[in-house]
Formats: sequence, structure tokens, C-alpha cells
Amino acid sequence: MTYQAAVEAYIRAINERDLEAIMALYAEDATVEDPVGSGAMQGQAVRDFYAKTAAMDISAELLGSVRVTEEYALFPFRVSIRGEAPMNIEVIDSFRFNAEGKIVEMRAFWGPTNVS
Amino acid sequence: MTYQAAVEAYIRAINERDLEAIMALYAEDATVEDPVGSGAMQGQAVRDFYAKTAAMDISAELLGSVRVTEEYALFPFRVSIRGEAPMNIEVIDSFRFNAEGKIVEMRAFWGPTNVS
Repeated sequence: MTYQAAVEAYIRAINERDLEAIMALYAEDATVEDPVGSGAMQGQAVRDFYAKTAAMDISAELLGSVRVTEEYALFPFRVSIRGEAPMNIEVIDSFRFNAEGKIVEMRAFWGPTNVS
Repeated sequence: MTYQAAVEAYIRAINERDLEAIMALYAEDATVEDPVGSGAMQGQAVRDFYAKTAAMDISAELLGSVRVTEEYALFPFRVSIRGEAPMNIEVIDSFRFNAEGKIVEMRAFWGPTNVS
């Protein structure tokens, strides 16, 4: 799977709230930091984080091209959370991949100015 | 200067090909890696890199919101190079700032799939 395809699969899996499809993109020892500055999660904490995400009334949409380097894919996107406290967040995610094409490090860059 | 303002000043300085305005945003010991994977430059190599940039028939345009965390600003933008071999590159830049609000690390994420 190309990095581009992995990003598209990630966005699709969030929209389908498909926890297993999200986790399948990750290496077992991957770290996830969302937002950057909150500290990296690993292992069961990552699964718990995405289980919580998949339980939300949430959607995600790419807002531009996926920037691809030898090890990284970065992409701008919007997360929309509906329900009682609707919220839109404009994020740039950074995925670093291992040689098997699995994500080993995810960092989500966003802050208060990116929430509306 | 907010991180948002620093990013806007950077884009403006590229469009005005104003080397000193670019360098003023950086801390003295800053590292610059453009593209990521090519190795980080520091000191005179950074100045030489931007002197070369400022000598080009180049423009830059933000393509979305600046994502701001405690230490970082990330932003999607397009660089257009005119002349004999015109080229557009879609980039995501990552700026990490020090406590004085100067950029201490710049990483430009783009690869062959982002060039047209």
C-alpha cells in the first residue's frame, strides 16, 4: 500500500468508524500523539483512543494533497464532530512509516485556533 | 509575534524575495531540512539556501489554515517557480519555535508526487 493509499484508508476508516481498519494501518508498537503536546500513547492506549473516536458521531475530510517523503506522509484534513457539542477541527496529521508500510508514529497538529 | 503571524511573514518574505526578512524569523542555530530526508542544514548553509531561493522567480501561497500547537506551526502551501523549467510544489512546512518566538527547526515535507 502506498502512503497515499494508507492516508485514504485512514480517512475512510474514520468515516466508517471502523476500529479494526484503523488499527490495521498501525504497527504494533506505534505511538500516537493527538494533539501534539499532550504526550504520546502506545499499545492499549492507542486502541482505547480510536475506540472512543469510532464511538463518536464523527466524519473526516481531506483538505488538500498528501505530502509524501521517504518515511512520512503529512496531510491537511477536517474532523467534524456532531451531536450535542458540534465541533470542527482543522488538523495536519503526520504519519511515519516502517519498512513494512505500517504507521509507527502518528502526530496530530492542531490547537485552540483550529477549532470552530 | 504569534506563530500565525510568523508563518504569514514567511510567505510574504518569500514572495518579496526578502532574504533578511526570512532570516529574521529564524534563531541563529536553527536547522532547516528541505525536503525532509535530504539532511538538516544549519548556519551559513541555511542563509545560502534562502539566498538561492530569493534569487529565483518564485512565489508562495498558503493553501489552508495554519495548525498551531504549543511549540509548532504547520501549514500547507504551494511554491511556484517560473522561468525555463516552471514547477509547482505542494508542501507542508513544520516550524518549531523557541521561547523567543524564533524558528529553531524547519522541516519541509514534499516529494516527487507533490511536484507538477
